[in-house]
This record gives sequence, C-alpha cells and structure tokens, in this order.
Amino acid sequence: MTTTLPNFKSPDGLITAVVQDAATGKVLMLAHMNREAWDETVATRRACYFSRSRNRLWRKGEESGHVQQVREIFIDCDGDAVLLKVDQTGAACHEGFESCFFRREAGGAWEVVGERVIDPRGVYKDKKD
Amino acid sequence: MTTTLPNFKSPDGLITAVVQDAATGKVLMLAHMNREAWDETVATRRACYFSRSRNRLWRKGEESGHVQQVREIFIDCDGDAVLLKVDQTGAACHEGFESCFFRREAGGAWEVVGERVIDPRGVYKDKKD
Repeated sequence: MTTTLPNFKSPDGLITAVVQDAATGKVLMLAHMNREAWDETVATRRACYFSRSRNRLWRKGEESGHVQQVREIFIDCDGDAVLLKVDQTGAACHEGFESCFFRREAGGAWEVVGERVIDPRGVYKDKKD
Repeated sequence: MTTTLPNFKSPDGLITAVVQDAATGKVLMLAHMNREAWDETVATRRACYFSRSRNRLWRKGEESGHVQQVREIFIDCDGDAVLLKVDQTGAACHEGFESCFFRREAGGAWEVVGERVIDPRGVYKDKKD
C-alpha cells in the first residue's frame, strides 16, 4: 500500500492482527504480521501472517487448508493493529476449535465453551497452522 | 486466579487483550495487561490494562469516565491473549470513535467509516485513556 499505515515501528517490526468471522462477528484468533505478510494479505486477500515461533511467513491454511478469505480490513488509531474480517474455511484454531478463544473464565477457572469443528489429528504435521 | 493461565511468559511480561462490545460484537480496541492489570480486571470486572507508553497501570476510563464493564472473558489456545466482552460507556477510542478500528482499507488508502460518538476535545488532558 502507498500509505504510511500500518506502521511497523515496534521493536520487533510486527503489527497485531485481530481476526473476526465476517458473518458472525466471532473473534477467531490473534496473529502478527511483518510488512511482507501485510503486503501479501492486501494483494491476495488471503490472510498471511508472520509466525514468531517459526520466524517465517505463515500463509494461514498452507498445511491444513483452513484458509481465510479477507473481506474487509480495518486499522486502529495507533496504526499498529489491524482487524481482518474473514471467511474462515474449517477451523481457525489448530486445536480444531472454530475460534482460538474457546475457553471462558468462570470464577477462577477456565471452562471449554467453544465448538470443536475439526478433529486436529491428522491435519497437522507441524504444531500449528 | 489460581490457574496457570494466562501465561505472562513473553519477553515484556504482557498479554494482549482484544476488547469486544458484548451487545453488538464490534471489536473496540486492543490493549495489553501485566499480571497486576489482569488480576484487577478479574476481581473488579472493570477493564484495567497496562499502558506501554506510560509504563503504568491504565484503568480504562480513569480520566474520561469511559469505563468498560467486563461481562465475559475468554482465553486463547496459547494462553497469551484474552478476549473481553464489555459494556462500553462513552467511546472506546481516545479520538472519540466508538471503536479504535474506525478506518477501513480501500484500494491502497484508508477511509474513515467509524462513528464518532464523543467529541474528544476537553475530555482528555493526557494522550489517551
């Protein structure tokens, strides 16, 4: 993009991406992007992140097929976080849940409230996708 | 909380909080928490963050009155991000918009699509709240 936003001025050069289901509004996951991931996402309308654990571009769904088609992109007031509204194929979470936020706080404990839509066994060779 | 989650194992000891309007599902903002901010949020059900720019606890609304009543809290698979569903008084964004994500990407530019619900002049002495 030709604008100065997003700004990649944080120490690690990354911005944060909040990912929301375009149809339901459910928050699916959080991820990070470097400039290359951002440029690819905007150009292809397929979510591409930067994996901090693997230190490389992470094309969401590259292994699982659980791609994210990007419908809309918003940016926050500081310019260092973006919100992607996506159509999610399969499951956002590598544990097979629709959303990574599948546990709810309940009086000092966590209860699983999310829906497991995919059996993660056999889908992933690597830790996550 | 007595569980090991969230984990505050990142280099800066912070977790990321995504904040969503409990009624509408609109994503309002992104913020960070250290353990103290987290404990206070859970105990009081009022959103308390850690301001990285001011390097101190940031009780959302402490200056503006634009507090966030926390209805539900979710945690992600990695345990380093939480999702707060809140009732927002006033505006989440220090610029007076309902949401910090008030600009949408449109072919290489950003267009303001959010609703400014508060005139920020006069509300803030400090940069943000």
